[in-house]
Amino acid sequence: MVYLTRSEHFNAAHKLYNPAWSYEKNEAVFGKCANENWHGHNYELLVTIKGMPDPDTGFVFDVKKLSTIINREVIDKIDHRNLNIDVDFMKGKMCSTENLAVAIWNELKEHLPPNVALHCIKLYETPRIYVEYFGE
Amino acid sequence: MVYLTRSEHFNAAHKLYNPAWSYEKNEAVFGKCANENWHGHNYELLVTIKGMPDPDTGFVFDVKKLSTIINREVIDKIDHRNLNIDVDFMKGKMCSTENLAVAIWNELKEHLPPNVALHCIKLYETPRIYVEYFGE
Amino acid sequence: MVYLTRSEHFNAAHKLYNPAWSYEKNEAVFGKCANENWHGHNYELLVTIKGMPDPDTGFVFDVKKLSTIINREVIDKIDHRNLNIDVDFMKGKMCSTENLAVAIWNELKEHLPPNVALHCIKLYETPRIYVEYFGE
Amino acid sequence: MVYLTRSEHFNAAHKLYNPAWSYEKNEAVFGKCANENWHGHNYELLVTIKGMPDPDTGFVFDVKKLSTIINREVIDKIDHRNLNIDVDFMKGKMCSTENLAVAIWNELKEHLPPNVALHCIKLYETPRIYVEYFGE
Amino acid sequence: MVYLTRSEHFNAAHKLYNPAWSYEKNEAVFGKCANENWHGHNYELLVTIKGMPDPDTGFVFDVKKLSTIINREVIDKIDHRNLNIDVDFMKGKMCSTENLAVAIWNELKEHLPPNVALHCIKLYETPRIYVEYFGE
Amino acid sequence: MVYLTRSEHFNAAHKLYNPAWSYEKNEAVFGKCANENWHGHNYELLVTIKGMPDPDTGFVFDVKKLSTIINREVIDKIDHRNLNIDVDFMKGKMCSTENLAVAIWNELKEHLPPNVALHCIKLYETPRIYVEYFGE
Repeated sequence: MVYLTRSEHFNAAHKLYNPAWSYEKNEAVFGKCANENWHGHNYELLVTIKGMPDPDTGFVFDVKKLSTIINREVIDKIDHRNLNIDVDFMKGKMCSTENLAVAIWNELKEHLPPNVALHCIKLYETPRIYVEYFGE
Repeated sequence: MVYLTRSEHFNAAHKLYNPAWSYEKNEAVFGKCANENWHGHNYELLVTIKGMPDPDTGFVFDVKKLSTIINREVIDKIDHRNLNIDVDFMKGKMCSTENLAVAIWNELKEHLPPNVALHCIKLYETPRIYVEYFGE
Repeated sequence: MVYLTRSEHFNAAHKLYNPAWSYEKNEAVFGKCANENWHGHNYELLVTIKGMPDPDTGFVFDVKKLSTIINREVIDKIDHRNLNIDVDFMKGKMCSTENLAVAIWNELKEHLPPNVALHCIKLYETPRIYVEYFGE
Repeated sequence: MVYLTRSEHFNAAHKLYNPAWSYEKNEAVFGKCANENWHGHNYELLVTIKGMPDPDTGFVFDVKKLSTIINREVIDKIDHRNLNIDVDFMKGKMCSTENLAVAIWNELKEHLPPNVALHCIKLYETPRIYVEYFGE
Repeated sequence: MVYLTRSEHFNAAHKLYNPAWSYEKNEAVFGKCANENWHGHNYELLVTIKGMPDPDTGFVFDVKKLSTIINREVIDKIDHRNLNIDVDFMKGKMCSTENLAVAIWNELKEHLPPNVALHCIKLYETPRIYVEYFGE
Repeated sequence: MVYLTRSEHFNAAHKLYNPAWSYEKNEAVFGKCANENWHGHNYELLVTIKGMPDPDTGFVFDVKKLSTIINREVIDKIDHRNLNIDVDFMKGKMCSTENLAVAIWNELKEHLPPNVALHCIKLYETPRIYVEYFGE
């Protein structure tokens, strides 16, 4: 079993704001992340899959195809977008990095070939903050 | 003469949109950067000053004081903000990285002590795109 | 279950020197790391916790609060210090990166809220050397 | 149990080409990676071992000795080489990063002292693509 | 005047070998870089241009167009290639990073619009070795 | 004219303390950097030289020889040392990064071959603070 990771980047706007709360409570809990006019990030997304290398290619999976799938199923839907407004799979959810990582897992899991398994979504919000989700 | 650089980070939302143009022209020129619902970045700001090291301290300038000035005059005004809406010194300007770097130079230049000179503003929009401005 | 990591930095002096050994044996085992006048590092500390995202905030834990705890319980006690002399929780221990990571785990584990668990301490001594400790 | 990682670099040429296939099929599967005149990479190799810190040294294992072993058993055989032609332990295998990581595991596993275990080979082919192998 | 930099990556094989010299002299001068079976690198190329920001766009030049030009004129000709064999503009030249940077300058200089000037080619051969060329 | 840069690393202890001042004044000016028991850093040193590429080698200067000179004249004298106590060329000087960069320039400038010139010493004290010295 070998683990293969591909890193992709995207830029997006978001804010942390719970519509069930008052403006004051949002400010108190989320601080400047609650700014009503949004802020944004250069996110770095690392997708790890696992499987057995194919004897004919030496590949767990063709990393260019992996990149194509990540871009088609995820990046194209969130890059240069507003995560709170523009992204179907984040509708009705708080736009935390935690929730975004879980949502990206759910977007990707059905689109991998049967001989590999999705292992981890690692998502950097800034160079010093990241989350990981392993599907359970 | 020694050059001293301090790096600071901020996160902000913006869009590239010229209000004198039609929606279609903005789309044609700026592509997904024109998304009306904003996108955002983790900007990295490098401020370089120059001067002679002080014989008593060995410092061109105390780098903690430099950090305090950059934060007070620039970062506190743009971090977790919308550059098009929330930032006084970007009002009426296109929110390109080029214009933001020049505006940051202008915000900082009056706030340094007389024995040092501002040398360069280097601003990363993404890890692969940056601009530099030397004041002329 | 989502894993959340926050990275913090500190600078410290140390030496590798076993007081039960002769100077010559220390030199033979630790080489230039045994220099009696100390050397030092820019350490990078990554603290990973795990838990379920809160439905109201989307957070496993507020990363700013995590940073506050790491700084109060660890960084403030070791940053710009001499690890062999100045740090209570390293007293009587060899100042290896391994032992420092285990000691940081022990300092932090009691200070996290009940709904999250400490998962990993990852400590870089240099960009090319790091250790990880998972509490067992 | 503490995990200790050492990073080493090497530069090598390779191509992805299955000699059992036609030129056209190799082109179709591997694209420009099949270029008959080779291409190359700056590989980054991270070797992780695990064990209990020694009470006298604080070390799981002396990281300088670990570096010496990695260089003697692996780096000296592949650095500035052609992976398809010059490297005995890659003979008859497809030169994918997956297969190279597994082969490096096999080269190293016999050369570590009995009190530590090899835990992971992590191999970057580019800054955005890496594989990991845990020996099973 | 603002300076704008775009970074691009490519992977290539090469060797350092002067055909006017004996094999022994090549070995003596270039060491393992003379390996007849090639080695390779992940090169990182930073192209800096300078100009006045356009009042309508805020751009010195559209960085996506800059990327397109760099890819069309340079990257497509050298990525996943053998620099000694496959690249017209390196024919008859020693394949040092110095000569490659100068050749890339010459490939690019005619393809920029009249309102901007090429300022610098910065080329990393490894993360710890780079060259810069300013056109004179 | 091509500029060639080689990066080297070293780890050292130091403190910022002016012996002509009281303990209290040192604390007031240098804060925790004045800690009497020292602190330390992983310094990163970038040495840039300039010259014309040699037609026979393509090199401004053999970068391995440059590395050998930097290590022999500088790194071997400061790595794993105490900059205030152990380093002859810092005796009697404040151990700021500014003064260290100037001192490294003076150590290196006589040891380069006549066909190249020393252009810049760039010295990182932390990933977010660096100084540059151009010899004047």
